[in-house]
Formats: sequence, C-alpha cells, structure tokens
Amino acid sequence: MTTLATAIQKSLDGRWAALRDEARTDLDPGRFAPPSEPLDLEGYRARIADQVQALAATGHPKRGFPKSMGGNGDLGGSVTAFELLGHADLSLMVKAGVHWGLFGGAVANLGTERHHTAYLPSIIDASLPGCFAMSETGHGSDVQSLGTTATYDPDTDELVVHTPDLRSRKDYIGGAARDGRMAAVFAQLVTGGESHGVHCVLVPIRDDSGATMPGVTIGDCGAKEGLPGVDNGRLTFDQVRVPRTNLLNRYGDIDEHGTYTSPIENQTRRFFTMLGTLVRGRISVAGGAGAATRSALTLAITYAGHRRQFAPPGGDDEVILLDYRVHQRKLLPALARSYALQFAQNELVSLMHDVQSAGDAADEHQQRELEARAAGIKAVATTHATTTIQTCREACGGAGYLAVNRLPALKADTDVFTTFEGDNTVLLQLVAKGLLTDYRDAFGDLDTFGMAKFGARQFAGAVIERTSARGLIQRLIDSAPGRDSEKGPTDRGWQLDLFEDREKHLLETLALRLRKAGKPGADLFAVFNESQDHVIEAARAHVDRVILESFVAGIDACEDPAAAQTLARVCDLYALSSIEADKGWFLEHGRITPARSKQVTAAVNDLCASLRPHAQELVDAFGIPREWLGTELLAPLA
Amino acid sequence: MTTLATAIQKSLDGRWAALRDEARTDLDPGRFAPPSEPLDLEGYRARIADQVQALAATGHPKRGFPKSMGGNGDLGGSVTAFELLGHADLSLMVKAGVHWGLFGGAVANLGTERHHTAYLPSIIDASLPGCFAMSETGHGSDVQSLGTTATYDPDTDELVVHTPDLRSRKDYIGGAARDGRMAAVFAQLVTGGESHGVHCVLVPIRDDSGATMPGVTIGDCGAKEGLPGVDNGRLTFDQVRVPRTNLLNRYGDIDEHGTYTSPIENQTRRFFTMLGTLVRGRISVAGGAGAATRSALTLAITYAGHRRQFAPPGGDDEVILLDYRVHQRKLLPALARSYALQFAQNELVSLMHDVQSAGDAADEHQQRELEARAAGIKAVATTHATTTIQTCREACGGAGYLAVNRLPALKADTDVFTTFEGDNTVLLQLVAKGLLTDYRDAFGDLDTFGMAKFGARQFAGAVIERTSARGLIQRLIDSAPGRDSEKGPTDRGWQLDLFEDREKHLLETLALRLRKAGKPGADLFAVFNESQDHVIEAARAHVDRVILESFVAGIDACEDPAAAQTLARVCDLYALSSIEADKGWFLEHGRITPARSKQVTAAVNDLCASLRPHAQELVDAFGIPREWLGTELLAPLA
Repeated sequence: MTTLATAIQKSLDGRWAALRDEARTDLDPGRFAPPSEPLDLEGYRARIADQVQALAATGHPKRGFPKSMGGNGDLGGSVTAFELLGHADLSLMVKAGVHWGLFGGAVANLGTERHHTAYLPSIIDASLPGCFAMSETGHGSDVQSLGTTATYDPDTDELVVHTPDLRSRKDYIGGAARDGRMAAVFAQLVTGGESHGVHCVLVPIRDDSGATMPGVTIGDCGAKEGLPGVDNGRLTFDQVRVPRTNLLNRYGDIDEHGTYTSPIENQTRRFFTMLGTLVRGRISVAGGAGAATRSALTLAITYAGHRRQFAPPGGDDEVILLDYRVHQRKLLPALARSYALQFAQNELVSLMHDVQSAGDAADEHQQRELEARAAGIKAVATTHATTTIQTCREACGGAGYLAVNRLPALKADTDVFTTFEGDNTVLLQLVAKGLLTDYRDAFGDLDTFGMAKFGARQFAGAVIERTSARGLIQRLIDSAPGRDSEKGPTDRGWQLDLFEDREKHLLETLALRLRKAGKPGADLFAVFNESQDHVIEAARAHVDRVILESFVAGIDACEDPAAAQTLARVCDLYALSSIEADKGWFLEHGRITPARSKQVTAAVNDLCASLRPHAQELVDAFGIPREWLGTELLAPLA
Repeated sequence: MTTLATAIQKSLDGRWAALRDEARTDLDPGRFAPPSEPLDLEGYRARIADQVQALAATGHPKRGFPKSMGGNGDLGGSVTAFELLGHADLSLMVKAGVHWGLFGGAVANLGTERHHTAYLPSIIDASLPGCFAMSETGHGSDVQSLGTTATYDPDTDELVVHTPDLRSRKDYIGGAARDGRMAAVFAQLVTGGESHGVHCVLVPIRDDSGATMPGVTIGDCGAKEGLPGVDNGRLTFDQVRVPRTNLLNRYGDIDEHGTYTSPIENQTRRFFTMLGTLVRGRISVAGGAGAATRSALTLAITYAGHRRQFAPPGGDDEVILLDYRVHQRKLLPALARSYALQFAQNELVSLMHDVQSAGDAADEHQQRELEARAAGIKAVATTHATTTIQTCREACGGAGYLAVNRLPALKADTDVFTTFEGDNTVLLQLVAKGLLTDYRDAFGDLDTFGMAKFGARQFAGAVIERTSARGLIQRLIDSAPGRDSEKGPTDRGWQLDLFEDREKHLLETLALRLRKAGKPGADLFAVFNESQDHVIEAARAHVDRVILESFVAGIDACEDPAAAQTLARVCDLYALSSIEADKGWFLEHGRITPARSKQVTAAVNDLCASLRPHAQELVDAFGIPREWLGTELLAPLA
C-alpha cells in the first residue's frame, strides 16, 4: 500500500478503525471465505452452520448486546464487524445476521429480563440457533397486516400460535429449513377476542434432537438465486401452544388474568416503535452491501489495470482497459459513489451507536431520524450494490462470469438485499413520509392529506433532520458562486446548493400535490398513487444530499492533506456524476443551463482521467486483505 | 387468450409464425425445460447433452443449413426456432447454439465441399459434438490479435496447431470441458514463415472413446454464474498436427506445394468477411435474450396482476401491485421495449434470411448492413434483457429470488449475453464506425481520421442504411407538427423526427470531433479515446431509431384494427419512455422545451395507466405456453 492509500484507508475506516483491523485478522478467509469447490445445498448449509459456530468463538457477536445482557455493549463495533463479514462468504454474513442480529435483536429489544436471562447466553454462543419469523407468503412489506395469530387461552395460561391460511404462512425465513430451534414469530396478539396488533412470540420449532415440534410444519424454500448457505424455509403453525411468558413483552404484555397492557396506547405507534428497535438489521444490510460492492470494485478495477486489449495506432503494446474512457466511465463514478456511501454508512453507524447506547434515555426525535436515515441509506446502498456488481461483472467479460472469480456469487448473494429488510421502493416512501412530516409544520394543514391516512399503514412516521457538519455545509453553500458563475462545476458550495435545492423543490411540490387529498370526497388512493413517482424521486434526492454531506464531512475530518485532496476529487466525481445522471431534472427545472450541463459532462470525463492513475490506490484503500479476494483477476497472466 | 391477445400475437409472431407454432409444440417442457431439482455440474451437463440429442431428433437443426449441404435451407426459420428455445432451458439453447450455430456455421460458411461432405451430416445429427474455439484467455474482443498459430509443414503436408503462451490458451469454449470431439480453431495461419492472418482449422480434441487427443490439454472453466449445463473449457495445443485439408478454405487456402491463395487480397478485409459469415450467432443471441426477457416479463406482470399489498384508505381489499404507479413504471415501459425489440428482431431475421439465402450472390452492401444491424440489436437486446430480468426479479420480491420461480436462472443464464458473441461496448463501436463510413462521402476527408486506422483493427467496416418502411416513416415525419406544436407527444411523426434528429446530430458532431485525427502529428489514440463516450451514444441513438422504425412498420403491417390500436399505444410508451430516459440530452440540445419534457413524463404515466388493463393480454400475446412457465408466480394463493 502506498502512503496515500494508507492515509485514505484511515479516513474510510472511521470511528471503528481499530476494530476493523482486528476483524481483518479474525475473519481470515481460511475460515470464512466461500468454498473453493461447488457444494450441494446441504453441504453448503452444513458448512455455514459450522462457520457460525466458529464465528461465535471469535467473540465478535458479543459486541451487539448490552453489557447488562451479557454482551460487550459495542453496538457500532458490532455492525462494523458485520460489515467486514461482507468480504467473507455472504451466506455466513446473512446467516449470522439472522441469528444474532434479527433473532437475538428481537429477544434483546422486544423482550424483557426474563427473556434476556433465559435465552441470550445461548443466543450469544450460538447454541440456540434462532429464526426471525416476520414475513409471510402473502405479506412482506405490509407487516402490520400479518395473518398469523397468537391468541391467549386463559384456561391454560398459554398463547396459541396459529396460521389461518396459506397467505399467512411464514416464508423465506432464514434458519427455518435446517438449523433453527426457536423462532421469534410475529403475530396478531389476541386476548379475550380483542386484537392488539402485531407482537412477537418465541416459539420452539425443533427440539434438541432437531425433530420438528408438534403442530409446526416446516417447509424448505430450496435453491435460491444466491445465499446457498442460508436455509430459508416456511413455517406453518397449527394451534401451537407456548407459555404466556414467551411473549416478548417490552411494549405489550398480558398478565396472569389475561389483561393486556402496553406503555404505548396507540396501536400504530406501538407497532412502529417495536419495528424501530429492529433498525440495526437495515443498517447491517447496507453495510454488508457496501463491503460486497467494494470487493467487486477491487476485483474489476485491479483487472482493468492490467488487462490489455487492442493495440493503438502505431503502437505494439495493447491498451490497458482502464485507459479507455468508456471503461473509466463504467467503473470510476461507481467507485466514487462507493466512497460516498462508505462515509454515509460510517456516520449512520455512529448515530445508531449513540442513540441505541442511550437505551431508554434515547431521544425519540433522534430515533426517528435514525430510522429514516437507515431506510434511505439501505435503499440506495443496496441498489448501488446490484448495479455496480453487475457493471463489474461485465467489465471483466468472460472471466467475470466464472464462479472462481467471485463476481457471480457477489452478484447473486447481494441481489436480494434490494428487497429484503424492507423493499427499497417501500423504504424510499418511508423516507419521503418522514420528510413530509417535517413540512407539516410549515404547511399547517398537511396532516389532513390522505397520505397521512393511507400512509399510516404504508409508512412509518419518521422525522428527518439535516445531517451533521451543518456549520461547514452552510458556510460552503453561502460562499457558492451564482448559478451561472465563471467558477467551474467543481465548486463544492455550488454542488451542495444544487443537491439541497433539488430536494427542497421536490418536497415542496410534493406536499402541494398531496394537499388535494384534504379536499372533501377526494379519492385518497388516487391522490397518493398519482404522486408515487414523485414521492420516490423526492426521497432519492434527499438521500443523495445526505450522502454528499457525509462525504464532505468525512473529507473535513481527514487529517492527511494529500489524502484529503484526493478524496475531494473523488467527491467531485460523486457529485458531478450524480448531477449528470439527473441532468434531465436539473435542466427541466432551470437549475442548470445547457452550457453548464455540458461542463458537468466534461468535468466527469476530466475527473475520470485524473483519478485513473490513483485507481489502484483507491481500491487498495478499501483495506480488503488480498488473500480474501484471491482470484485470477488480480494478477496479469504470466 | 382474448381475441385481442391472439391478434397481437399474430403480429408479433411475424413471418415465421407457422414455425413458431410448430416449435411451441416440439419444444415441450417435458423434454426441454430446466430441471425441477438442483443438479450438480456433471448431472446438469449430462442432462443437456441428452437434450441436444433429443433436439437433433426433432429435425429443427436441419433448417440452419442449406439444402445443398443436407439441410432444409430455412435460415430464418432456424434462428426463429432457436429463439423459441430461449423459453426452454437456456443452457440447452447455448449448447445448441455453439454446436449447430457456431461450430456447424463455421464448417458450412468457412469450409468448402470437402468439409461439408465429411462433417455436416454428423454435425446436423449431433453425432460429432463440436466446439467453436475462437476466444483466448488474453484475447476476446480483439480476435484479429489471437495468439494461436497454425503453421504449414510442407514435409508432412500438415498444419501444426500451437498455443505459444498462456494468453493464447483457448478459453470459455462451450463444449470443450466434457462433450466436444472436434473444435473449429481460430489461429494465425503461417506458411513459409509468412502470416496470413486469422483462419479456422478443424482440430479433433477427443477420440471416439472420449479420450483427449495427444498434444491437446483440456481444462474446465468449472462453475459459472449461469448456464450450468454448458461445459465451458480451455484448450491448449502443443504442436498438434492435422492434415492440411482441415483448413476451412473458403476464403484462404494452401495448395499441396504450400502456396497460400485467397479470393480476398486485403488481409483485414478477408478477416472481416470471414467474421461476417458468422453473423447468425449474434442474431441468435439477440433472439434468445428477447425470449428470456419475455418469459421474465410474463412472470412478473402476471404476478403483479394478482399479488396484493397494503389496503387503501377506507378499503378492505389490499391494492393489486400492478395498480401502483411505481410498479407500472417498473414493468410496462420495459414491456413496451420488449415489443419494440421483437419487431426489430423479426425484421433483422428476415433481412438475414434474404441476404444469406442468396449465397454468393448476396449484395455486399446488404451484408454490411446486416452485420451492423445485428451488432446493434444484439447489444441493445442483451442489455435490455439484463436490466429487465433484474427488474422483474425485484418486482417479485422474495418469491423472485427462489430458484423454483425461474427468474434467478433467467437472470444468471442471460447475464453473459452482454459480453459474449461480441462485448456490447465493442459492438456499439462497430455500429458507429459503420455509420461514420456512410458520412465519409459527405465529409470528404474523413478517411484520414485516426479512427480509420485505429478502427481498422477495432471496428469492422460496416455500412448502415435507413431501415425498411422508408416511405411510411418519411410521410409520418413530413406530417409531424412543429417542435412546440399543440399536438401532444404521442404524435408519431414528432417522435420519429426526434429520434432521427438526435442520431444525425450525434453523428455529425462525432465526425467533426474525429477530424482532428487527420491533423499532422495528432495523437490518434487520444482523439479516439476522448470521443469514445460520444461514439457509444451515437450508436445507441441509431439503434433506438432503427427499433422505433421497425415497430412502426410492424404496426403498419398489422391487419387487425384493435390490435393495431393497442400496439400503437405500446409504441407510444416505448418512444416516450425512451425520450424520457434521455431527456437530459434532448433538453441540453434544445430539442425539447422543459414544458414538453414534463408533458412526456405525464404521457408516460398516462400510457402506463391506460395499458394497465391490457397488461395480461400483452404478455399472453408473447405466446409462451403456460406450462413452460409453470411456477408459483402465475396463480394467486388459494
């Protein structure tokens, strides 16, 4: 690694740099890399189950649980270590995420001391493999409408968990098909004939010998596009009885007389509060997607740096792929976006750490901001992963299609990230809803718009704030030149202003459109639906701005001048390639002139050319140990 | 099927409609569908090898060879039948394409009677499984620089085939790893110490017992992202001797005295003529990509037509996915593009049939047009496949990720289509080069630009003409309203004019930029490279126009008024969503006003809504037998 690459890595590694180094050693590929030979489904699942045990032995999973529950209480470190797993086998990452993050997270965050004492020790050491049984065959995004019921039977002081129909079958449940012993089952809680909305109940699904529990039917989702080591399955419950105390009762409880109580009166608010505690899953998926994308970029850019094709006129040496403009344009703006997302992810993890470490003292406002930002970054990071890994595969031609060169698995394994832990389209709607809640104050009567009613089910009630480094961003914007100034498009204030202005315009016009829903007799669904593309556009614009601001803050925090200078150019490439990609909007709305638009394109080309000599350093700075990526792509042919 | 769907299918089925019906019966999924249970690599390869034999027995492969060579001489029918195979197992499609299309095509088109007599019967009945050994580890796109040599030894009257280094190893060769007995090997032909450029030589690689021939080393590419049933491998030749007569000698021959002769003096021209005869491979890949994309759209649109999520305000029934605007926008413009591409593909196949059926009497001009159009349609159709199948997967959420629902295999199998049979980026450059050759006449001195020299190696010398239905298109353009007329964006003349105008502008400005290369001392590579993104843009604009014109011609030929009316709206959606996707360019170049740009977006939304009730009919009209797609996605849950 060059001095420059080392300095940039320090900047990218961020707050948990020391832990990253530790994980780089602990997660060595001898133990956690994908198999070098094809395995059948059962062989792959068995391998991953063993790796989960080995991972437990490293002690890393302890970080994700508070000290009071037998953990290390390093939540940010936990998510960061998980991110590093994204360079190992992604089946392991997801399997670990389901067990410790989702199942363990449900017990820790939705349960109370009796569950913590009874289960967390064996969850932390992975001796009680668990499942997170939320999605159903008929309900994925709309969790509030789940069909599974958990009905209290006062005669036996038990909860009866039941699957009323095929649509209510638990589906795609990681760990269900082979290894899971206990499931955190999300179900409509019913006492005395009254429903209290979705709650979570612990249901044993297999006994210690691995035999399926009575009343439980387990199906196997079989082969999937990717993640072959994750044993996704289906769970059907036929009047399965569990003790009343198996209800995870932090936000809703039943006493021994069958009376339901909750610290949160409003059912919808209770539901979103419960879901909100599970935000770490989305943040973790965004992190893992980032790691996988950086693996792919490291492979494709390293390959493009030595692979040659076609001799130029008058030359004997064939041209190196990365010297072609079109090849630069395929890979370098994607690289810049990965940098931007890494800074945004670091900031998000840091925010999560601070909010969640505060426990019950956490500020609700900050909690809402965390949820919205997690949703937005997750959506953008996973879409970026799918697009970029695809580009990397194509940039490596036939070599990129061979399993031995890792890109196929990176692609197939991460593909589901765009639709699990929240479908990206639904998540972006949630982001927009949060932003509109902010605007309500300004518009007065916005709480009457139909989205509020329809959205109550489709959207969480999140609130979004301006991101950090506010003072710096404001100074840069204030010093920005006018719209058609002589200053080129690399002026940071101009870029920031443009991103912010687009978001504001989209939100304001969206809010105006949605006011129609407030009119008497308005068709609320029609009003919402006719604005739906606008909703998504506004959310994307918001997330783009948050990401840019994170990048700017990250550069500001970088102490090495040479690294900061290079990062500034990468940031230019992120900002300008984003503007170029959306130039239709900026031109349509008179935000840039045609002349400026052409300048932006020229600047993207120039930035690609000027960063090209640093391309290898920029991927080296991701700090992915070479042996983790040991493929034929990395070295030129002898 | 409704009457409307039946009428539209007739239009889409085109010239080889009868054959399509026949193939729909012959290729029944009981024999040619993907396996319902996971198979290991060897099991999958064995299955596909057996299916190839079954396919031979249907007689379809005969169509691809002239009557004079023992075939049926129905070239267009052959490519159409191959396209239908794209609905079956894509491993079978590719394996069949390699054997009959590429290997058989090389023998038929590059060989002469002695090869036809000796080999074609056993190629047609698949008793001599063959490979097409063109790509090398170090040379994929740049075929002219292949490293393998075939050196004439006058002492024994033999050709000595040799792999000088690792970069020259034949790589990714379908059929090499397991089944191939003979390979059509592309190599630099050398006689008396002089090289005559790339030629093709038949080299046995396994004997009748399946044992590897002496001097040949066979490697296995192993598992790939997709196409598990295709046994891609590597071939290394250590001074392998074959009779002189194994040279496929239609365009270059060695007599018994070792003298080289060719009907084409110029080596580069000879090379491109030889490659040109192999154009059917690209057309076939475009066709297969189209079929796979239509399968995916049928699955995703059918699913979206019954899958519900989230209840609207005041309603109990949850909303059907396809009623959401964002979901319509994901699927319906892609559907419209698939329609457009199908008409363009039909036209291309028809052109190919007429040109190639003419044999040596074929017009060279038409041959060049065919090559360029094949390159362009292949690039656009395969990129569309990758993007659209991805969208379809995501639109089906978790269900789309399950292997049993077909989308994973459709995605993985077709992914390599963007980079094999010509990398799409290289193919688009070839298209642009062909267009510029046209412009040379107008600009006079364009033959001095560096691209001509650099391009001589990178580009084939293709010439492109306006597509068919010229009179009709011209009438529509002539009657188009002015740029800011009151007529809405659905005026066909306006759309055609806009597409044509963009292409013309991009080509003219490109030609001007490239003139710099003509200056003394110009850095030819730099001039080319700095225009490379412009080159690709021009080519894409050209292909978009060709596709639109094909669609317009297809509607004109449709005899059912209701079908024609629906097709016209689908065509509007194709044209307007394409304009919307590139609105940045149109606005930047003053081709549309901001107001018109917003009208286009509104029109796309309106078209999505108005076609939504016909969505199921529009996928039914693809005529894919239901049982070929038998997955859980097709029917609502009980």
